[in-house]
Amino acid sequence: MPTNFEPSGIITLTTDFGHKGPFVATMKGVMMTAFPQVRIIDLTHETDVHFPGEAGFWLMRSYGYFPRGTTHVAVVDPGVGTSREIITVVYHGHAFVAPDNGLLAPFAERDGAQVFQLDLSNPERLGIGAISSTFHGRDILAPVGAGLASGRLRPDAVGPPTDNVTPSWIEEPATSNGKVRGIVVAVDHFGNLITNITRQHVEGFARPVVEAGGRTFELGRTYGDVTPGEFLALINSFDVLELARAEQSAADGLGLSRGAPVVVVER
Amino acid sequence: MPTNFEPSGIITLTTDFGHKGPFVATMKGVMMTAFPQVRIIDLTHETDVHFPGEAGFWLMRSYGYFPRGTTHVAVVDPGVGTSREIITVVYHGHAFVAPDNGLLAPFAERDGAQVFQLDLSNPERLGIGAISSTFHGRDILAPVGAGLASGRLRPDAVGPPTDNVTPSWIEEPATSNGKVRGIVVAVDHFGNLITNITRQHVEGFARPVVEAGGRTFELGRTYGDVTPGEFLALINSFDVLELARAEQSAADGLGLSRGAPVVVVER
Amino acid sequence: MPTNFEPSGIITLTTDFGHKGPFVATMKGVMMTAFPQVRIIDLTHETDVHFPGEAGFWLMRSYGYFPRGTTHVAVVDPGVGTSREIITVVYHGHAFVAPDNGLLAPFAERDGAQVFQLDLSNPERLGIGAISSTFHGRDILAPVGAGLASGRLRPDAVGPPTDNVTPSWIEEPATSNGKVRGIVVAVDHFGNLITNITRQHVEGFARPVVEAGGRTFELGRTYGDVTPGEFLALINSFDVLELARAEQSAADGLGLSRGAPVVVVER
Repeated sequence: MPTNFEPSGIITLTTDFGHKGPFVATMKGVMMTAFPQVRIIDLTHETDVHFPGEAGFWLMRSYGYFPRGTTHVAVVDPGVGTSREIITVVYHGHAFVAPDNGLLAPFAERDGAQVFQLDLSNPERLGIGAISSTFHGRDILAPVGAGLASGRLRPDAVGPPTDNVTPSWIEEPATSNGKVRGIVVAVDHFGNLITNITRQHVEGFARPVVEAGGRTFELGRTYGDVTPGEFLALINSFDVLELARAEQSAADGLGLSRGAPVVVVER
Repeated sequence: MPTNFEPSGIITLTTDFGHKGPFVATMKGVMMTAFPQVRIIDLTHETDVHFPGEAGFWLMRSYGYFPRGTTHVAVVDPGVGTSREIITVVYHGHAFVAPDNGLLAPFAERDGAQVFQLDLSNPERLGIGAISSTFHGRDILAPVGAGLASGRLRPDAVGPPTDNVTPSWIEEPATSNGKVRGIVVAVDHFGNLITNITRQHVEGFARPVVEAGGRTFELGRTYGDVTPGEFLALINSFDVLELARAEQSAADGLGLSRGAPVVVVER
Repeated sequence: MPTNFEPSGIITLTTDFGHKGPFVATMKGVMMTAFPQVRIIDLTHETDVHFPGEAGFWLMRSYGYFPRGTTHVAVVDPGVGTSREIITVVYHGHAFVAPDNGLLAPFAERDGAQVFQLDLSNPERLGIGAISSTFHGRDILAPVGAGLASGRLRPDAVGPPTDNVTPSWIEEPATSNGKVRGIVVAVDHFGNLITNITRQHVEGFARPVVEAGGRTFELGRTYGDVTPGEFLALINSFDVLELARAEQSAADGLGLSRGAPVVVVER
């Protein structure tokens, strides 16, 4: 089952490791040892810890800004060292490698996605050396990512195809009775509350109004259109609904965080 | 109006985005898509949010450490999507791109600086695709920065020259009655309080003493010259006056932060 | 005294600078100015401030994941601008540059390590320009690191060999009465408590049990082997003993931090 993946030599890295200690850096060292010409971009290392959903959400919203042929390695891995699998997904000419814990479900469930389960019976074949029990990001995903990015390892050579993929931790928004019900998926550095409700969901309304935290929000266009301190909802630059407060933190102002329900209704 | 900018292929990035989410990363992805050989260095992504002054201050103090021909892209942009302009400045053989909100005023006001206002009437000409209302860093500044860094886009081709630039949010220190009055502009990771008072200001005094937060500080040379826990003032490695506390945080110890007044007087 | 260092062109950077301000970035700018082809990887910039021990610990545990010939520049430097020396160590085909404050003692004390003391009597010879009193990382270590990484500067040319190196701030674990007594050296982003007790120490026990914070910990294999919220001890992926709590922070749960005593005993 050949894929349409033509490696660009670029790898993005997404983890919940933060910036303390050499965890991300040793993954990069392994990649550079295996593939000296690799170019590595940090997507983010500050997704909520132990929550694969945010990493998968941002990857789906971001991958298209990278050159076709990019390899995306993501490690949010509370089950490291247990029996959970590792999968590679090829989608729209990009390759993704992550633990099979729901992180890549947003890709794997799409039409045209090809999913392969890592076969670790012969790790040397995949460029893998010693494997620790607590850091597969460095010991498995980094060498496999480097192999894919270099072209030395084809996606369909990592192991057998599979369609048995762990579902996402984030459900799709529910539509009923003329309402769309979603949740806050991530909070950014400014305190903007970012939801899983997409532009397409909102476009179904003639005069949409957003409800969250016991308040109602008008749909605006950009932060500067309201007075500093005012709240607004908007379709953000990643095409999802966001609750914001001009020049202040909506998260602090509303006391809301990941998982908070957000509803779009007709006025 | 040709410029003396000869691109080195290097871009620095300065933002107030922090490290959560793929905001910085998607800017890099756009740059690498437009200019695959680009080399990108993060200047900092932790300037005070919504405050262009700190970004401009650090850029002015830092640009000289990068190779001539570097392109510096800075995004602190509370007015994104409103009518504020975007400008390119060429200064000392470096190019700077940022919203025209005072961020680049420290450069634009210097002799020899050339300033151009981005003409977005034909965005394709600048390598720009779809433009969101809330993330011009990714949708406008990243492709323009990549164009400048690659040499494909010359600074004088981004739009017409202008000398109508928004002034800085940080005033120059005031000199009167034998005193220099400045402010704290930034606080570093160690809690050192960094001011806008320069070495030149301080050199005008025979025996300078620094006053801030109701205290008086002797001018020292380096942290290790005083006992751990002692306060001192010094001219730091970026040639501005800094209040420090040996092996501790001056910011915490003094309860001072950005905007706090700092005065240099003759003993 | 020639060394076995063949530069790979790669530099890793380890500091306690955090991510505010252009401190790390100007070091990179200096390196790229001196050696345009350099490839720089951030090891971490979040070691405990003013504590060289953590930086040296992580470097020793990490360097082997980078290509042979990598130059490792580390700056945790409370004594900057005082009479402390700067040293270069060559060990296992890697080069290390840091202030001589104990940071590199874990390397310098090993068999086969070669140590050279920077001779600053002719700084131009080392590629060094103006030297500030407060930022030798940028003004001395960055150009020396770039010189080593480029091959322009050989390790034995930075200055005379020395065997007079400042000892580490972290003592080796003490073994007595069938117990191994170590300490917590670092806390990672997840709140795992990482000690200086190695796999070799623990392998000396038939049925090891770990004591810390008034509690006893069973030795496990990986986080997912216990129920979320449960504590465990394990030999982590850097081959040292770690106290962890599945999907939670052991540091918060135990109220322990750097320096806390940890003891391994026979059951």
